[in-house]
Amino acid sequence: MSDSWVNSPEAATGGADFHLVLRGPGGVRAQLMRALREAIGSGRLAPGTRLPPYRTLAADLGIARNTVGDAYAELVEEGWLTARQGSGTRVAPRAEPLGKGRSRAPVRQTRRRPALDLMPSSPDASAFPRTAWTASARRAMGVAPHDAFGVGDPQGRIELRRALAEYLARARGVRTAPDRLVICSGFAHGLRLLSSLLRGAVAVEAYGLAFHRDVVTGADLRTLPLTVDGRGARIEELPATRAGAVLLTPAHQFPTGGPLHHERRAAVVNWARSTGGLVVEDDYDGEFRYDREPVGAVQGLDPERVVYIGSVSKSLSPAMRLGWMALPGWLVDDVLAAKGERELWSGVVEQLTLADFLACGSYDRHLRRMRRVYRRRRDQLAATLARRAPHIRVSGVAAGLHAVLELPPGTERTALRAARRQGLALDGLANYRHPDSTMPVHDGLVIGFGTPPEHAFANALEALCLALPDAPAGSPDAGPYA
Amino acid sequence: MSDSWVNSPEAATGGADFHLVLRGPGGVRAQLMRALREAIGSGRLAPGTRLPPYRTLAADLGIARNTVGDAYAELVEEGWLTARQGSGTRVAPRAEPLGKGRSRAPVRQTRRRPALDLMPSSPDASAFPRTAWTASARRAMGVAPHDAFGVGDPQGRIELRRALAEYLARARGVRTAPDRLVICSGFAHGLRLLSSLLRGAVAVEAYGLAFHRDVVTGADLRTLPLTVDGRGARIEELPATRAGAVLLTPAHQFPTGGPLHHERRAAVVNWARSTGGLVVEDDYDGEFRYDREPVGAVQGLDPERVVYIGSVSKSLSPAMRLGWMALPGWLVDDVLAAKGERELWSGVVEQLTLADFLACGSYDRHLRRMRRVYRRRRDQLAATLARRAPHIRVSGVAAGLHAVLELPPGTERTALRAARRQGLALDGLANYRHPDSTMPVHDGLVIGFGTPPEHAFANALEALCLALPDAPAGSPDAGPYA
Repeated sequence: MSDSWVNSPEAATGGADFHLVLRGPGGVRAQLMRALREAIGSGRLAPGTRLPPYRTLAADLGIARNTVGDAYAELVEEGWLTARQGSGTRVAPRAEPLGKGRSRAPVRQTRRRPALDLMPSSPDASAFPRTAWTASARRAMGVAPHDAFGVGDPQGRIELRRALAEYLARARGVRTAPDRLVICSGFAHGLRLLSSLLRGAVAVEAYGLAFHRDVVTGADLRTLPLTVDGRGARIEELPATRAGAVLLTPAHQFPTGGPLHHERRAAVVNWARSTGGLVVEDDYDGEFRYDREPVGAVQGLDPERVVYIGSVSKSLSPAMRLGWMALPGWLVDDVLAAKGERELWSGVVEQLTLADFLACGSYDRHLRRMRRVYRRRRDQLAATLARRAPHIRVSGVAAGLHAVLELPPGTERTALRAARRQGLALDGLANYRHPDSTMPVHDGLVIGFGTPPEHAFANALEALCLALPDAPAGSPDAGPYA
Repeated sequence: MSDSWVNSPEAATGGADFHLVLRGPGGVRAQLMRALREAIGSGRLAPGTRLPPYRTLAADLGIARNTVGDAYAELVEEGWLTARQGSGTRVAPRAEPLGKGRSRAPVRQTRRRPALDLMPSSPDASAFPRTAWTASARRAMGVAPHDAFGVGDPQGRIELRRALAEYLARARGVRTAPDRLVICSGFAHGLRLLSSLLRGAVAVEAYGLAFHRDVVTGADLRTLPLTVDGRGARIEELPATRAGAVLLTPAHQFPTGGPLHHERRAAVVNWARSTGGLVVEDDYDGEFRYDREPVGAVQGLDPERVVYIGSVSKSLSPAMRLGWMALPGWLVDDVLAAKGERELWSGVVEQLTLADFLACGSYDRHLRRMRRVYRRRRDQLAATLARRAPHIRVSGVAAGLHAVLELPPGTERTALRAARRQGLALDGLANYRHPDSTMPVHDGLVIGFGTPPEHAFANALEALCLALPDAPAGSPDAGPYA
């Protein structure tokens, strides 16, 4: 490592000593260039500053003159320095230190999640199956053909599409084939691709993710709300909307929690077939059903009229960005065209790893394990509320990672504020309501019981109980389990 | 495994025997449901077909009656079957076999790459560092905090942004910080995000990727071409375009191959500062320079006016879908808003793996190795052409994974056809030309010498030589090296 205080009279660095340290990787020239860039970039060498002549700096640093000359020439080429006959080498006027631009960058706040987290739509992040996933990654990398790392197929790796076709048929009653599957980054990506192909209006459930509605409206489509009741969305309202497509969560209405009734399943498929409409099925947590077999996908009723979209966001992690669409045959090419020839989005290593993870049974094993964990949590939530807040009805808990607590009218916002004071993140039903819905407003909380790590679940429940509104006057203080 | 030919008089399956096989994972009920779904889905059980009563099927299969009853009830709920008092259980009329929809799916052709591939913009897929990548994945999974698998930060994992800030400063002269970096899926994704924030027109190089121009025009922006010469894009044409942004490939003009001259580097930054314009720097292959130090990024000259975008598409694999944007501080929040709170796109495991891969030096080692490989190929290409086709000038080969062969006027299409006949995939310069450019047309081939695996390179070169046009009459048959 060469180290020098450059302080010759010719250095003309505004009288200040100028400390150059040569270190790090690369040869002496690379080190010198890095040191000069750093000195200019940080503002230690101000614009217009004249640099020492080659021979002086070379002598100061104990390095060859040529090396200094080459470094200067290179930095001139990069625009850091200017060289004019007679004026020597100077720091270029435009080389400006970071943060002195026309507007200074605001210091970004790191997102902090509160200490206790019952926000819906995330599985327990601490339960990600790291060991099994790494084992699948290692196996997948061992057998992947070379072309996996070339320009990929926007439809997704065939290994993954084959494994998914088998899994979806077996576990979700989806009728598809590898050439009708398109890998995407998750539900929203799939919905975005479909929305770009639709015109007019899309019917949606009156309660649902505002984020999904935004994806649809972002494609210049309107969203029209369908009333939601205990049997799911009211399909009988669908024809009058004149929508060309309908977005549903049939396995487990999000967030209110019931499965779509079988008559409505039949009705929506009949609607699609008689009008040429499209059903978009968001199977976001279809794998998590606790008290009986999962309800199969609506897609199985008519694969030519239903687009089935699933992902690993609830089963593994929302940070994986891996999902899939099972498409009608006539839609495959249009969706691929919308996806774009060059934008695969999902990384090839993750795709190959998931293919192995499915094929070797690790996915099933993980789901079985998590079903036990989440069922225990659901039971604990229900038992705790029965004891501590028997006036609150819990619904939508036959499946999934969240429950809805039905609150007395007008108490939702108070409960959310109370939760915040406890350091507990919660979501209220109001956030999910379509602004145009004419349904009566229901106060409620959407409880993501899957979200916290195991050790924090009991504390989160305790904070939840403290945040809930008291029983209305006249109710008994405690319920039947007290 | 239970196995039965269902053939009772009550089965009423149109006289045909109906073979039900119970097998696969899950209990008997799950197996039965799967078998029935499969039989209905495949058309073996036609709509309207009456199913055997519980007791008959149970006896045939040697299983409990309740199990059959439960399975029927479940399939009614899913819409596969209908149950009416007095009419028994029948296959629902809407359960239609796959492929009988309103339009049959076209049989999709598998994309086949030709045997010999010199298409540009892909590194050698067979050189992906599988072992080192897997080692990084294992290490990264060992130390990742649990929250890595929760709802992620759309900006990207902090571990990766830290590693990138260090790497980009060291290797590319980029002046940035982790809170100014945004992880994206690649250059196109970054360009798409920026385009959504711009208005009016974007100046582009007259030769460049049509795909990138499409991303810009897809955001309702116009693209205006800047003439390209041996010093890169002619920045002096920029003010007259009145564009609000300019898209450049300064390290190595794509595809013509020269670095942006230092005076033009200064000029474009001055333009941006005086007009409030934005420079978008596509550093697609900045790491691959063969004969001297890489040219540093223009971004280093003014991080508040230049957006630097890079990716692993050339250094590791275009199928990884991992890239990064170094943003001016004032743009970070807008880009994150455009990216969307829920759409991280890049998977967390890949992000954490790349962070380790950078930090442990594997990235540098891989680049060093590949630089040697590609330099050798470039030399081989140049030597082969000097010997076999001395009338063809090779340019743009000081860096990167591709070269341009300058062809006699009017011979480009003939050469491409000849290459196709040899089973050689090639690209012509015409594909890269902006349709509005007033530059004189140059015939040429863009040769991706990085693309083929090592063992196929010599054959690809041979096919290339056979496809090249002959020397014009009057030229010597062989060049100085023959």
